[in-house]
Parts: sequence; C-alpha cells; structure tokens
Amino acid sequence: MQQDTPHKPFKRLLLTGAGGGLGTLLRERIKPWADVIRVSDIRDIPTAQAGEEVVRCDLSDRAAVLSLLDGVDAVLHFGGVSVEEEVDRIVQANIVGLHNLYEAVHKQGIRRVIYASSSHVVGFYPTTQVVDACAPLRPDCLYGVSKCFGEALSRYYYDRFGIETVCLRIGSSFDAPRNARMMVTFLAHDDLVELVRCALFTPRVGHTITFGVSDNPVRWWDNGQAAHLGFVPKHSSREHAGRFPQTGAWPPVDDIGATFQGGPFVLAGPIYKD
Amino acid sequence: MQQDTPHKPFKRLLLTGAGGGLGTLLRERIKPWADVIRVSDIRDIPTAQAGEEVVRCDLSDRAAVLSLLDGVDAVLHFGGVSVEEEVDRIVQANIVGLHNLYEAVHKQGIRRVIYASSSHVVGFYPTTQVVDACAPLRPDCLYGVSKCFGEALSRYYYDRFGIETVCLRIGSSFDAPRNARMMVTFLAHDDLVELVRCALFTPRVGHTITFGVSDNPVRWWDNGQAAHLGFVPKHSSREHAGRFPQTGAWPPVDDIGATFQGGPFVLAGPIYKD
Amino acid sequence: MQQDTPHKPFKRLLLTGAGGGLGTLLRERIKPWADVIRVSDIRDIPTAQAGEEVVRCDLSDRAAVLSLLDGVDAVLHFGGVSVEEEVDRIVQANIVGLHNLYEAVHKQGIRRVIYASSSHVVGFYPTTQVVDACAPLRPDCLYGVSKCFGEALSRYYYDRFGIETVCLRIGSSFDAPRNARMMVTFLAHDDLVELVRCALFTPRVGHTITFGVSDNPVRWWDNGQAAHLGFVPKHSSREHAGRFPQTGAWPPVDDIGATFQGGPFVLAGPIYKD
Amino acid sequence: MQQDTPHKPFKRLLLTGAGGGLGTLLRERIKPWADVIRVSDIRDIPTAQAGEEVVRCDLSDRAAVLSLLDGVDAVLHFGGVSVEEEVDRIVQANIVGLHNLYEAVHKQGIRRVIYASSSHVVGFYPTTQVVDACAPLRPDCLYGVSKCFGEALSRYYYDRFGIETVCLRIGSSFDAPRNARMMVTFLAHDDLVELVRCALFTPRVGHTITFGVSDNPVRWWDNGQAAHLGFVPKHSSREHAGRFPQTGAWPPVDDIGATFQGGPFVLAGPIYKD
Amino acid sequence: MQQDTPHKPFKRLLLTGAGGGLGTLLRERIKPWADVIRVSDIRDIPTAQAGEEVVRCDLSDRAAVLSLLDGVDAVLHFGGVSVEEEVDRIVQANIVGLHNLYEAVHKQGIRRVIYASSSHVVGFYPTTQVVDACAPLRPDCLYGVSKCFGEALSRYYYDRFGIETVCLRIGSSFDAPRNARMMVTFLAHDDLVELVRCALFTPRVGHTITFGVSDNPVRWWDNGQAAHLGFVPKHSSREHAGRFPQTGAWPPVDDIGATFQGGPFVLAGPIYKD
Amino acid sequence: MQQDTPHKPFKRLLLTGAGGGLGTLLRERIKPWADVIRVSDIRDIPTAQAGEEVVRCDLSDRAAVLSLLDGVDAVLHFGGVSVEEEVDRIVQANIVGLHNLYEAVHKQGIRRVIYASSSHVVGFYPTTQVVDACAPLRPDCLYGVSKCFGEALSRYYYDRFGIETVCLRIGSSFDAPRNARMMVTFLAHDDLVELVRCALFTPRVGHTITFGVSDNPVRWWDNGQAAHLGFVPKHSSREHAGRFPQTGAWPPVDDIGATFQGGPFVLAGPIYKD
Repeated sequence: MQQDTPHKPFKRLLLTGAGGGLGTLLRERIKPWADVIRVSDIRDIPTAQAGEEVVRCDLSDRAAVLSLLDGVDAVLHFGGVSVEEEVDRIVQANIVGLHNLYEAVHKQGIRRVIYASSSHVVGFYPTTQVVDACAPLRPDCLYGVSKCFGEALSRYYYDRFGIETVCLRIGSSFDAPRNARMMVTFLAHDDLVELVRCALFTPRVGHTITFGVSDNPVRWWDNGQAAHLGFVPKHSSREHAGRFPQTGAWPPVDDIGATFQGGPFVLAGPIYKD
Repeated sequence: MQQDTPHKPFKRLLLTGAGGGLGTLLRERIKPWADVIRVSDIRDIPTAQAGEEVVRCDLSDRAAVLSLLDGVDAVLHFGGVSVEEEVDRIVQANIVGLHNLYEAVHKQGIRRVIYASSSHVVGFYPTTQVVDACAPLRPDCLYGVSKCFGEALSRYYYDRFGIETVCLRIGSSFDAPRNARMMVTFLAHDDLVELVRCALFTPRVGHTITFGVSDNPVRWWDNGQAAHLGFVPKHSSREHAGRFPQTGAWPPVDDIGATFQGGPFVLAGPIYKD
Repeated sequence: MQQDTPHKPFKRLLLTGAGGGLGTLLRERIKPWADVIRVSDIRDIPTAQAGEEVVRCDLSDRAAVLSLLDGVDAVLHFGGVSVEEEVDRIVQANIVGLHNLYEAVHKQGIRRVIYASSSHVVGFYPTTQVVDACAPLRPDCLYGVSKCFGEALSRYYYDRFGIETVCLRIGSSFDAPRNARMMVTFLAHDDLVELVRCALFTPRVGHTITFGVSDNPVRWWDNGQAAHLGFVPKHSSREHAGRFPQTGAWPPVDDIGATFQGGPFVLAGPIYKD
Repeated sequence: MQQDTPHKPFKRLLLTGAGGGLGTLLRERIKPWADVIRVSDIRDIPTAQAGEEVVRCDLSDRAAVLSLLDGVDAVLHFGGVSVEEEVDRIVQANIVGLHNLYEAVHKQGIRRVIYASSSHVVGFYPTTQVVDACAPLRPDCLYGVSKCFGEALSRYYYDRFGIETVCLRIGSSFDAPRNARMMVTFLAHDDLVELVRCALFTPRVGHTITFGVSDNPVRWWDNGQAAHLGFVPKHSSREHAGRFPQTGAWPPVDDIGATFQGGPFVLAGPIYKD
Repeated sequence: MQQDTPHKPFKRLLLTGAGGGLGTLLRERIKPWADVIRVSDIRDIPTAQAGEEVVRCDLSDRAAVLSLLDGVDAVLHFGGVSVEEEVDRIVQANIVGLHNLYEAVHKQGIRRVIYASSSHVVGFYPTTQVVDACAPLRPDCLYGVSKCFGEALSRYYYDRFGIETVCLRIGSSFDAPRNARMMVTFLAHDDLVELVRCALFTPRVGHTITFGVSDNPVRWWDNGQAAHLGFVPKHSSREHAGRFPQTGAWPPVDDIGATFQGGPFVLAGPIYKD
Repeated sequence: MQQDTPHKPFKRLLLTGAGGGLGTLLRERIKPWADVIRVSDIRDIPTAQAGEEVVRCDLSDRAAVLSLLDGVDAVLHFGGVSVEEEVDRIVQANIVGLHNLYEAVHKQGIRRVIYASSSHVVGFYPTTQVVDACAPLRPDCLYGVSKCFGEALSRYYYDRFGIETVCLRIGSSFDAPRNARMMVTFLAHDDLVELVRCALFTPRVGHTITFGVSDNPVRWWDNGQAAHLGFVPKHSSREHAGRFPQTGAWPPVDDIGATFQGGPFVLAGPIYKD
C-alpha cells in the first residue's frame, strides 16, 4: 500500500511523543493507517518523510496544542513524562499538558484518543494478586499518580462530551524483557502495534481501560473487561525463556521492590531527594 | 457408523424447527447420535430419510405437541420464531408454543431440552461491555423478550421438576459472517454442532445458559460459567478476515444500531408499524 | 387537600386492576396525587367518585388499551392475573395484555409505569439465601414466569424508548400476615402506598427493580440496589408477633413448599391438572 | 472542657481551608480534640483565639507548606479549590498544593490526614444507580478530576510510606438542603463533625474512602466498606421534609443535570469559556 | 411458663460446654425452649434443676458422646476449647471431639446443630476491612484454625446428610466490653440468647454462617448473607460509651495486635513456647 | 546436569510422602532442582540414590519432624493420608502431622511449603458449577475436611509468620484418566511437575490456592486467581479421547456420586461403617 494514496482509513492521525522509544516505533508502523501522520514531540525529532508532518510542541502551551490538533482525526498520545521525574515536570507534562490536549480535542471536534497510561497505576498491588480494569487504583510512584489523573480526566471527557478514549496500561514494551520482572510485564513491539490498531479501529470503544501485555506465562492482569477490543497478543516472553531463569534465590522478605507489581518503580522518586 | 444400528447413544431425538436454517443443518449432522431423529416443523420439510421420522406440527397446538414428544429421549428445540415479527406470531410460537412443549416434556418424562435461546436477550448491552450468563437481561426486540420468557420458563421446569435445559444464546450461525458485526457474533456451523453435542451428552447440565459463539477475536460474551459443558470452539471469524475490515469510518455517534450488541435488531419492529 | 383543585402533582394517573385487593386500596390512597384518577378493571368495579374516571377494559383488547391510556401521565399497573391460573388466562392478561399496555404507553407518549411484578420471580431461591435485584431469575410458578416476561418487556421499552418502569416485586400485602411465611414477606398497606409514591415521584428511575417488603426481622431480599427510590418502610411484621410463633416443629426435610421462598406457590399449578 | 489543658487527645491539629464554609465550622467544633488547633487559609481569616494558631499559607508554596506542618499531629485538609474553577487555579491548589502537603506530611513524620475529597469524583453515575467506594471513578467536572488525583496521591503515600488517609467524599454540607438534589446529598453539620471525629480517632484507618452523607431517605452511596470507621449519622434530610417536595414534574428527558448524581456540576465549567 | 409442661417447643435440647461462661448463661436462659435441657461439660457443673439433665462427658470419648446425644432434638454446641491452648488439647476437644459429636448427631438422627464457631476464623483481616460470611478464612491462632475445621466439617455433614448447622462466629460476649477492641466485637448477653433462638427456631437454616455481634457503631463484619435468620440485635456497645474512649494515641505502626481484627489473639500461642 | 554440582537452584529440598504415587514420580523429576533431595515416608521406600537422603518419618512424631526439616530450603509436602480412611488415621497424619510440619518449618526458618491439598475441599459443588479459589469450602469427605484444615493452617502460618504456601488442589494425577470423571479432573504427570516447579520457583507466592488440572475441555475450576504462578498446562485429557466417550446414558437423577464434583468420594467413608 502506498503511503500517499487517498484511500487509507484515516486522513490524519496525530502521534505525540514521537521522539520517545514507543513513539519512534509507532511512527514507523502506523503509516498504513492514515494519509498523513502528524508527529510531535517536545524535542527535536527526525524530519518528515513522505506522508508525515512534524510539529515540535510543548504540551504545556495551550495555544500550541490547540493548533497541533487542527485537522486531526484521532490522537495517539504517547507524549509526556513516562518515568519518575521531578514533580514539576510531571505536573506540566502529564497534568497541565494532558488537560490542554483534551481541551483541544474537544474544541477540534476529535472523537477518539488512544492514551498511553501505565501499569504503574496499579503497581502497588502485590505480585501475588491478579487485578483487572475495575480494581481500585494503587499507583506506585508520582508518575503513576499522574496517569491516574489521566484516566480520570479522559473518563470525564467521555461522560461529558462523548470523546472516546482507550487507556493503555502498558507494561514493559521493549525488544525483549530486560530483567526477570519483565518476563511478566513484557509487551512485544508487534503486540503494542496490534493493541493500538485495535484501540483505533474498533467501531465503539467508549472509555476502555486495557492492560498492554503480551501472552506471557505469568499474568498479573486480567484483560477480560476489554475483550471487546479484540486484542489477541501474538507474542510471549516465553520466546525469551532462559534469559532470566527462575532460581531458588527468592528475594529477601523485606525487598519491597520485589513484592509489588511496580517493581523498582515503587522505590523510585526524585521528589524525596531534597 | 451406520444410521440404523441399535447402538447409537440415543434411541430417539426430536429436532423442532427442522425446516429452518439451523434446523436443516442439524438434521444432517446429528444423525450419528440417535437411532431415530424425529424432525418437525410448522412448514413442509423434505421427506424422511432412513433413520428419520417427519412430523408436521404447529407448536401452538397442545395436543399435537404432546403427541410429537411421545417416545422421545431429548428435545433439540430450534422451532418457533427466530427474528422480529408480529407480536401475535411471537406469542403463539415462542410463548404458547414453548409452554406446550415443556408441558409435554414433563408429561412424557423427558429429561433434557436443548433450547435455542438468542444473544438478543442481552442485545441492549453496549458493544463496549463484556457480559456473562448472570448479567441482568436486556433484550433488544420483542423476539428477544420472548427468549427471556423461554429462559425463565425452562428455569422453572428445572427447579420444579428437574427437567434439564441448556439455553444456547446463539450469535450468528451462518456459513460465514455477513457483515462487520458478525465478525464478533459468528458461530461457525461446526461449532454449533459441537455446542449442541456438548449440551446433549454432558452427564449433568442442570439449567445452563451459554453463549453460542466461535473463537472470534472480539468478544462481548464471557462463557466462563458454562465451562462445565466442555465446549471449545474450533473456528473463528478470523478465518474470514478481510471481508469486513475495520476502517477509520467510525459509525456516527447517534447510530444506535452500531452502539448496542444487538446491532440492527435494536431498530427492528413490525410491532410499531400500525 | 381537595380532590379537584388543579394543583395536584399529576393531571391524570391510570390505575389498572382497580378492582383487586391492592387496586381497591390504592384507588383510595392515591387520590391526593392527581386531579383525576382513571381506574380500570376487567370486572365491574364501584362507580366513579369525584376526581375519578372508571373505565372497564380487557387488557387483551389492543384498541381498548390504547384508548384507556389517552391523556394519562403515568400508569400504575396492578391489573392482570396475580395468582397461578390456567395458562391461557395468564398469557392473555400478563403477556398479550402487558404488551398492549406498553405499546399504548409508547404511542401515547407516557413516560413512566409502576409495574406490579412479584417476588415469585425469585420464589425458587431457598429460604436460606438472600437475593437482590440482580440475582438470576428463578420463578416458582407459571404466574411467576409471566412476571419475568414483564420485567424483560419493560426493560426493553426503557432501553429502546426511554420509558421508565419501576418493577415492584411485591411480597404479601395484606392487613396482616396470614401465615408464618408472611412474617417474612409481609408488606404493610401503608408501606405499599409509600413504595408506590416513591416509585412515582422520584425524578429519575430508569428501569428499577425493587422488592416490596416491610421492615420485617427475617429478610430474604436485599433492596440495596434500589436505594435511590428512597423507600423506607415504616412497618414490620413484628407488629404482628405472636400470631405465628416459631416452634421447634421444623418442617419435614422433603417439604419443598417450606424450603423455597415462594412457599405454597411452588406447588401450585392448574396447568398440570389435565 | 477547657481549651488549654494538656489532657486533650492531640497536641496540635492542623486545619487547612479554615476560612471556607466547612473550615469555619470545623474550626469551632474541633477545639476539644487538641491543645492547639493550627488554622490556615490562603485568605485572611479571623485572628487566633485561645488554643489556636493562625497561619496564612498558599499551598502552592512548597517551603511554606513544610513549615506549616511543623509540630503537627494530624492534618484536616479542607483547603484548596472546592468548586469548578479555572484550570490553573485547580492545578495550583488541588494538585501542586496537595503534593506539597503530602510531601510535608512525609517529611514531618505525620501519620494521618483527613482529606476532603468530594462526591463529585463519582458525579457522572446516574441517579438511578447506587455506588460504593470501589466503583470506578466517574468525575463530573475538572474539580472532581482533581479530587480523583487526590485520592490516588493519598493512596500512594499510604502504600509507600504508611501515611494513613481518610478520603471524605462529602455530599452537600450546609445548614439545610438548598435544593431538591441536596435532599439526597445532604450532610448535616453535626454529622460532618462526627465523621471527621471518627476518621481522626479510629485506631487504624489505612487508606479509607467514605461518603460524607447523613441518613437521608434516598441513598446513592453505599458506605458499607467504611463501616470500620463507626460513623453513624444522626441527622437526615427528612428533618427538612417539605422544602423540596417531590412533584409529578419529572425533569425533561434531555436534562442531563438532573440525570447524573453530580447534578449541576456536570454542566459547570469555566474551562470551556474561551 | 412452667418448666415441665409438655407444651414447650422442643422435647430435649443438649447444651454442651454448659460449665463455661456462655454455657452457664445459656443454661439459664434456654429453659423455656424445651421440656428438658440436657447440659454437659468435661468438668463438674452445678447439679440438675427441674427440667434439666446433667451429663459429664469428655467429647473425645466417642461412645460417651453417642450416648450423650440419645433422645436429643437439637444440639447447642458450646463445648470444647475456646481460647488458644496447647495443640493437643485443641485437637482432642475441637477436632476429634467435634467429629465424635457430628458422627453421633448423624447416628441419632438429629437434624440441627448450633455451633459456637468464632470470629477468630477471620481474625487476620485488618481492622480496616469489612468481611462477610463468604470471605476466605484467615484464622489468627491455632484455636481459630480448629474453628475453621469445624465450619468445614459441619458443611460436609450438611451437604452429605442434610444435617443443618448454624455457625455462630461469636465476637466478645461478656456483660460489657472489657477493652477498646470489644467496643467493636461486643455481643451483649441478651443478643447472644436472641441469636441462638433465631438459629434454633428458624424453619430452614441449611448451613448458615453468621457473626455474633451486637449493633455496635464500628462494624468489621457484614451479616447480610444471614439475614434469613431474622437476628436483630437490640444492644450496642454504645451503651458502654465512655469506658474506652477513642484517643489521639494511635497504636504504634508495628503493633500487629492492634492491626488485625483478632487483636491480642494474633500474638497468642503456647504452641511456640518450647 | 550433574546431581552433585553446587550450582543447582536449591541446596536441599524435602519431599514427604515420597513412597506414594505422586511422591515416587516427583522424587525422580525434581532432582535437577536441588543438590540434595531429602525424601521421606512413613513406609519403607527405595534407598537413596546419588543426591538423595532417605529419612523414614512418622509425621505425628513431633521431634522426628523437627529433625526431618533440619537444613531444608523448602518443603514439598505430599505426605499424609490421600484418600478417605479411618478418622484416627486422618487426624494423626493430616492434622497432628501437618501441625508438626508447620511448627518445624517455623522453627527451622524455612520460607516456603508446597502443600498437596485436594480438589475434594470443594467436591460437594455440583458438576454444573464452576468454582474458583475464593469459593466457600464444600468438602466431600472427611479426608477433604482435613485438607480444609490444612489450607486454613497454612494461611495462618503465612499471616502470622510470613511462611509462604502454595496449596495445590490436585484433581486426578495418573498416567491417564481412569474413568469418565477424570476426563475433567485429569492432571497429567508432566503438568503436575510443571505446577510444582512454578509453585517453588516463583519469587513471591504469599498464600496461593490453585487447582491442579490439565487443559481439559470440561472445566469445573477457574484458576484465574493463581495466574501469578505462571502455570500453563501442556496436556489435556483430550489426548485420551475415546476412552470414556460421552453417551446418551445420563446418570439416574438420584445418583449423587455423579451429581457432585467429588464423584465417588462423596459416597466414601469408613467412618460410618460401625
């Protein structure tokens, strides 16, 4: 399929955070879905290819965000802070910035957002419990708290204005699991793309919360309530078996980083450095 | 296996609605299960083959129904109205007729009924919600309401007289999905036969409600509560991928036919024509 | 308050089944709620008082029902069969008749129905289990099955046309409990009136299912899901303590009439007489 | 009881938002609980009485907040924005300010916070549904979204640092209900004080979410999961019966302000004025 | 009412553990319920009054227990160990002894047992969580584990032989609360008697688990699933308000005895002395 | 892998019941997991191979058990009675013996036990219902009751001392299904070994209850709550299809052995022989 024919499903998709790890991946993979992919980041990112528009944008700039969303059919929001950082940066990017984004979505008449939430909104559940989309939130860091804000904000825009959002509680999306915990939380790149595709193309999504995770043997998350998305992962951390074999060396009983689903995130936090 | 040996599992099975789409299919496929298949319809149907008895019968005729069930081991009830129609026809076939059937089942000492209910008993659930057999009923048309009656009536006959019923909430059972919605609701013919087989042969079924649906990627229905039937679909609408590809053309926000699981049924209704 | 001032909350309420036990009671008690109470029954009933209109009507007559609902603000539907009877009568009154009623409600643009359902829709739950409005239906007689139909039909008219219904699963509404079972199921007359008042005046009811029962010590039914109606019973079967004292004479283990919430209804049934 | 004896239960309590409606009330009523009540607001408030310390403080000033919490045993946080306002003010007060507060609580070694959340975190549930503390959040305005943030942030500080919080989802706490909706959401002043007392004195609270509402006849909120607080309201909107009598004038079907628990809040919003 | 008339509800009730605290109380209070109260204990107890039979019996003696139950209508089993003790004593009394009891109940054709279980079967739930009869067991001591055995054993005898049992998870039944925790767990003596009466006289109980607790303000236990017993406590620890006032002296964060519902029981245990 | 290298995951594992059917199997299969496998039974068992220690031990001998657990990293407890037997044997082995085991685990500082519980703790659920790990216990025999004790005891040791246990509710683990019921309950030997491996190597297990069953078509048990173990069965009774084909010969309605999940166990019982 050629990138510039007028017959692609969407006219223009916006991808924020296009300079990040997942953004870079998606930028490449979503091209068949729209005539134009508008890609954006707060940083410099590679120049536009055919079928692309590159817009540098700071999400905390309300006017700039409104302009960024002009002419857009749907938003894939992978921008903002995605790890634990200084509170001011988190507030500007993930709270003020997200509000700017949804205000612009509303004003521009856009109907759907794919929102990169995070499994860290439930990271303080123990690793011995399986949780689903309705489980009360237990964020494991300030970054996770900001994603709770995002899920609540998007729910509000759905209930109030009918703007649909799929919240993707992404686990760990890399080429391969990088540590033993990621054998559980791994989301293969192909599966991420498929999940975004399901979230974007399903006729009705309302406000859906789904965990982004491959078909790994150990499961902490039950995606039964999002079965209407039709996401069926094709990969598994099993493909990487042997990298982090289970051993008899159980973690010490007071190792809280190993006790909770959030893993090392529960011990993160520049906010407590001063 | 020969059709007329005395060693088939059942002596005589009754199949009602044998002239309908699913009835015609089942008539052919269930032959190995019984020495005699008694097939019935309100209309003329093809004449009896070896191992068959053909009985024309109007379910609203109580005496005829009693006679129809004489000597029968189990009933596969696919008769009655299966789409939205005039209320009088629905009442006669699906309410009066069904009551006649169960009364006859009771009088003839028959122990099990496989009842073709319909997913339209929950068709007014939105397409963004997954429902199970315990979810409160939300029928999407008068036909669906009549199937709610059938599920309640069969529950009564189980609680009161121990007559077992499996209610099959059939999705869309055709050769292949005929529209995009059926990519979700598709029940392949082979899977239908297997589901009926499970419902008929499982030693104990009590009063079981199960959704009849293949292993399609998008799932609106959770069959966990009927796992004791051992039904494992072998087919999927995936085999028909490409027929109704998802597009960026989301349905209009006020398209209620696209909003609810029942699809076009929610807008049906000759009952309001006058 | 005078009966014919124009300042009553409603202009015209329709009460069906006005010649029955509860109908006769309500006819007297609801006068302050409307300028005109239109009362109807299939039988002859006492002539109209000031502020009343009397209309004799057979619910199975579609045209008559349409006319009956002309000019009505809301319907209190206490008509139809209220005990186990011949199936034909149940079908005509509670199924065909109820469908006629809702069709007329829809055509006349009426927004709310108070529907006398029955606790016999769950009468086959054992007396050792507490059930709520979401529990799967387990009717204890054919009459109970017809009320299941009514709950499903009214749900459909709500989902499809926005017509609100409150389904009252009435226990036993008499002057006083008449047997030991009614110490549990008793709904004092005053409490019935209050429940109907709540169902009628609450600004939004959607499709609500509620049990009609006083504040009796033994409770089989949990009304928590209908707390938005604001119904708070003021009476209790305790006021009639001593009438049916508990004794050490437990019922025989094979007394199914004492085992299920429906009590003697579970053993009823003219349908099996022939 | 004298205000300055050393035998009061706490040495020093901090009350933020002391200049607001509820703050002014609490300032007076909580005196018996601590030797010193430190009261704070962003605005000028009445000067300190015996047993009081007055500190003017802008919660968005991190250093000032740290100082404000010095020597405090527990915090009653009623500060911040409590109605829909410009997003910048909400972010500064309810997000940045709340983070400053919890950071200071952690640094000062304070063990418990009573946090004035709001029923507007679930204001988009319909008025026909009863919700409890575990129901997924459905905020009805940006202010409500900021309270969702607060509940998530406080949960994090509990899971991470063991700091206990009771989130009070306060309904409408005034002298008396001011409109018909408040007959449902009313929290009498005495009941508010009792609820705060329970939240403060219960030996263990962990992270508890509770609705602040009196014993009103209509109930939208189920407080069963917070029964360990021992809060038993003594008042009811029934005491104000007759002020807003129910009438037959149901709200129009498209009146969304009457459809959702949040009432007029769901239609608020200066954020969309520009 | 005279003790020896033939008109009492039961002919003969057996009360085990009649020499214990609750046994002594019940011995006096249940006299009106039976012509003869047979009272038993492993220890010497006061001699028989009119209408009483005294039988000394060690429950671990199978033959003696069989004889003890001869001619009995129903058993109130308050015998066995009721605090943490040496494991051997617990096994003999609460496991071997209880099995002997049920075997004798079965052989003697007795239909109902009131079994004094204990709230310590769920004592390891935190004091910030409300639990009901279906919550998975979390015993707080070996004594509590033995009561879990008792609940399972009695369930087995119900499922297998139809022998009904009401398991009473008694809190703290004394004249008055003896410490702050008992303000939550208090079961007034009158309420205990009423609970036993309900358990004994209700026509059908099946296998019911209920918490024995008065109407205290703080509630850890939800008895909704046992509402069919009709137990309505008339007393409350509120009557003893002021004895153990709540203070600002929260227990230390590492005080596990204050953290769990079982209180000091969670720290008990002679089994670890050696 | 050599048996005596120092690089195996564990230094020493204890396997009790090593002379039984599953013990014999595991003895062979778990060798790669530890430098030394200590195997134990009350009976004579084959002499030690390289990397093994054989210790004959009666679990009811407290001192012997303490000694048995010396130097052990983790316990695979397959000892005790595993079918219905005389009550005294069950008490000695499964109650006294199990208590001795956990007391020794605690004293020796061992952190994890894999406990062979049994599906017979829920054997009295009907074959038409799917149960999970949270379903209230319904044991089907005295042996099943003793396993309920074991689950409660192990929960206590986890809550009190942090000793982790995985309770394996094993179905029927043989070479192949031996009757029709085992087509449902079959746990292939390879799957048993895999399940034990998951239970042993998962970094955190807390107190986990899991059903031990292969991927059979009919499912009575829902293992969703144990998904954190990562157990994915590789086998299915489907591999043995044709051995016990379903037939039309439904069991008689009064055949309780065919009605409940426990099958013939529900009718077992030497305890009632005398």
